[in-house]
Amino acid sequence: MSKTNAGYFFEDYRVGQVLTHATPRTLSAGDVALYQALYGPRFALQSSGDVAEASGLPRGVVDDLITFHTVFGKTVPDISLNAVANLGYAEGRFLSRVQAGDTIRAESEVIGLKENSNGKTGIVWVRTKGFANGDRPVLEYVRWVMVRKGDVTAPAPETMVPELAEAVAAEALQVPEGLDWSDFDFDSSGEPHRFGDYAVGEVIDHVDGVTLTDPEHMMATRLWQNTAKVHFDVTARPDEQRLIYGGHIISLARALSFNGLANAQLLAAINGGAHANPAVAGDTIRAWSEVLDTARTENPSVGALRLRLVATKGAPGALRGEDGKYLPEVLLDLDYWAFIPI
Amino acid sequence: MSKTNAGYFFEDYRVGQVLTHATPRTLSAGDVALYQALYGPRFALQSSGDVAEASGLPRGVVDDLITFHTVFGKTVPDISLNAVANLGYAEGRFLSRVQAGDTIRAESEVIGLKENSNGKTGIVWVRTKGFANGDRPVLEYVRWVMVRKGDVTAPAPETMVPELAEAVAAEALQVPEGLDWSDFDFDSSGEPHRFGDYAVGEVIDHVDGVTLTDPEHMMATRLWQNTAKVHFDVTARPDEQRLIYGGHIISLARALSFNGLANAQLLAAINGGAHANPAVAGDTIRAWSEVLDTARTENPSVGALRLRLVATKGAPGALRGEDGKYLPEVLLDLDYWAFIPI
Amino acid sequence: MSKTNAGYFFEDYRVGQVLTHATPRTLSAGDVALYQALYGPRFALQSSGDVAEASGLPRGVVDDLITFHTVFGKTVPDISLNAVANLGYAEGRFLSRVQAGDTIRAESEVIGLKENSNGKTGIVWVRTKGFANGDRPVLEYVRWVMVRKGDVTAPAPETMVPELAEAVAAEALQVPEGLDWSDFDFDSSGEPHRFGDYAVGEVIDHVDGVTLTDPEHMMATRLWQNTAKVHFDVTARPDEQRLIYGGHIISLARALSFNGLANAQLLAAINGGAHANPAVAGDTIRAWSEVLDTARTENPSVGALRLRLVATKGAPGALRGEDGKYLPEVLLDLDYWAFIPI
Repeated sequence: MSKTNAGYFFEDYRVGQVLTHATPRTLSAGDVALYQALYGPRFALQSSGDVAEASGLPRGVVDDLITFHTVFGKTVPDISLNAVANLGYAEGRFLSRVQAGDTIRAESEVIGLKENSNGKTGIVWVRTKGFANGDRPVLEYVRWVMVRKGDVTAPAPETMVPELAEAVAAEALQVPEGLDWSDFDFDSSGEPHRFGDYAVGEVIDHVDGVTLTDPEHMMATRLWQNTAKVHFDVTARPDEQRLIYGGHIISLARALSFNGLANAQLLAAINGGAHANPAVAGDTIRAWSEVLDTARTENPSVGALRLRLVATKGAPGALRGEDGKYLPEVLLDLDYWAFIPI
Repeated sequence: MSKTNAGYFFEDYRVGQVLTHATPRTLSAGDVALYQALYGPRFALQSSGDVAEASGLPRGVVDDLITFHTVFGKTVPDISLNAVANLGYAEGRFLSRVQAGDTIRAESEVIGLKENSNGKTGIVWVRTKGFANGDRPVLEYVRWVMVRKGDVTAPAPETMVPELAEAVAAEALQVPEGLDWSDFDFDSSGEPHRFGDYAVGEVIDHVDGVTLTDPEHMMATRLWQNTAKVHFDVTARPDEQRLIYGGHIISLARALSFNGLANAQLLAAINGGAHANPAVAGDTIRAWSEVLDTARTENPSVGALRLRLVATKGAPGALRGEDGKYLPEVLLDLDYWAFIPI
Repeated sequence: MSKTNAGYFFEDYRVGQVLTHATPRTLSAGDVALYQALYGPRFALQSSGDVAEASGLPRGVVDDLITFHTVFGKTVPDISLNAVANLGYAEGRFLSRVQAGDTIRAESEVIGLKENSNGKTGIVWVRTKGFANGDRPVLEYVRWVMVRKGDVTAPAPETMVPELAEAVAAEALQVPEGLDWSDFDFDSSGEPHRFGDYAVGEVIDHVDGVTLTDPEHMMATRLWQNTAKVHFDVTARPDEQRLIYGGHIISLARALSFNGLANAQLLAAINGGAHANPAVAGDTIRAWSEVLDTARTENPSVGALRLRLVATKGAPGALRGEDGKYLPEVLLDLDYWAFIPI
């Protein structure tokens, strides 16, 4: 039985340790079609090779969340196989665009450790980097998770809590090379709203709802080679429910956000995010967005919107209760930057 | 909230209005594989690049219903987001073949309007055209839908009911350029039956049944970027059932019709069609066909069969009751032309 | 109704008869992505074009079970449409590797017949061969099935039971041309275990469980154009359960076996196999493997492991009861050879 990978436990991590994640993966038009079938995105740049080309990008540029999920999936066997909770994201930046045919690999550096006072679990911070075709950086982000100790008698490591930016600075966003939206065809995207039409504080209800099913989230999660057993095995939990991979909710909410944000076509950064409550099959997901900030970039045709994207089950309402905690119907609270034509 | 698209209401349409539908889409081998997984077609020309090439067509020619669904899906946000019912099709013609890699766009012209006597809804007729890679026509058809009024006090438009052909004339069918079935390999297709083996009035029971599931029709419907909420959101209806996109039933019935019509490999026209009753998960679909007409074409190796394709839930039986209405187990009554080797 | 294919009955087969199976199929990156979504494999060689190339194989080499399912699916309309049971496999060999873009066809020769004493059914043995792009052999195997008689008064054929090897001899395994694992990157595959680390008799528990759903097995089965109705139609059985295609369990178990056998990356042969009990949606599948034999090949960088792969529902336990029969929780008992770096 010794050949089976049991995953890392809290005491197996050291600050400075670099984990080379296994099973690099070559993405294809098949992954793009499955992403379409599972989430139904309609952003014009990824839907149409003609629109991508007219924007100065290669045909077949994939949705940025495909990049995110692929990199994230690679990290699961080394980071979160024994995780109790996925606690947060910070300092996420999309560094270059991925096309069908690119081969993605990932590595993570442990940048923080803190044992919990119960002595049974601890928090691990990692900075993960994704690369295409060898060494072209495509994505980096910090994630922290609560991990079980395998041996509760293992001594606590020295506490090291990394300082993380509250948000990625607008100046640090990487506008894709060659992107030119100076003559963008707003008929192709389905909405006329451009950078200047959005104001800080504006809230957009994305209207539509989608009821979740088990086969869909399982297929999505396998597509990214994410092996966490709670997503697949009804015997893993007393309630016999499969917990849905948090990234599934991110992609569904992002696809719903087309309705009102059709021109926010590329992700630029992930400032932070919380999977506030677990989702299961049967839940009906709705989403709303709030404009948190706006910024011009060095590219005169490209602006950036900082957006809060909230996914709920049931009708959207308040975000937090009087105790400051997320309400039980809130599933996702994601803070990100997106690029939009000026 | 004003940025969210609420869709068109009946009073928003004018005869002669041209709607340029958004989100052009580049089809790929991924869409073809998903179509295979969702419906299980076995028509040799689309299954095998070798058979396509031997027939004088390019490798990777896609099922004509992929073309239909992609064009149809584009029209939903502008035509049927507030539709109460999809009433009919006419004058549908497949004008050229689509391959993986082609980018499909669509536009529709409003050709008829008639407010209903209740003053709350009206009927809208549109002629929709699909194009590949700019301006190559691939499909056109007329569809009419019943649409809600957004403002019941809006005045009724002048009534304009278009005259529509009962069926596409055999002479108007567009045989694909280069198609040559003079030396077709009937071993590859699985059945020996060719044009001359079918007689008007002949009825073919396609035997097999398929029980519907929610994840499958949702994945199919998203693949075509069809956003009508009744397909996805169990809270949209009092019975908490997701209604299945009518095109899902067309594709399932067409795939079942392989058994007896294996050589009717290309769609030529859609003469008419009714989604007689809604389908939901758990229904088991069966299908039968009737040969309505036969015609030779200007291509000596290519004949055309005019077929009625009927999908039912439960065992196939009669089509209409004594009152002339479709029986409740009838889901689809489609009248189309297909090409078959002579 | 005469145009509908009712399938072959026992009395329709003759020893020496060659069946050319219909609907050749061109595989694509879309099939590979669906295989990923349905089973979640992580074997590095098929996951990454870079790893394939570094191993001397073409980018886009597909999982060997995609080859198996595609060939198998082609045989169903001619071999097992009226089958009562799929009894066994023998002498299976993977002869060359399939890439996206290859067109697969199949033919079978009847090599044995034996009517059962009840006079209502009989056993048919066939040797099936799969070819790519015309005549390149990719796979061959013997399968035997129990088939119903259509006419119980038809005379029994002369009994002919073929002699079959208990296992494919190590010397008969076809190492893929060009395969070079002398410098394999074990970081990419996720486990350090190579040929010399496995010992005959060693048992590996693959740990994870996956709960089955109907839409997933139906999509998989359609992808291979396998039309056996018990997989799709709840009205085909009194218990209204869809029986799951046995190959679905093979693929799931093989994907689970990554955990402990990550470097056993290519299938070499199928020595035998039993679908011990049927599986239905809701069952949770687990798997374990036993090393039955090991062998070096003529390629100094490539070894072969003979493995028993067992899939169970519920926790793995014993294989057979005191009566020598498989226990009811055993679903699959597969005996195969795989290639692994030395």
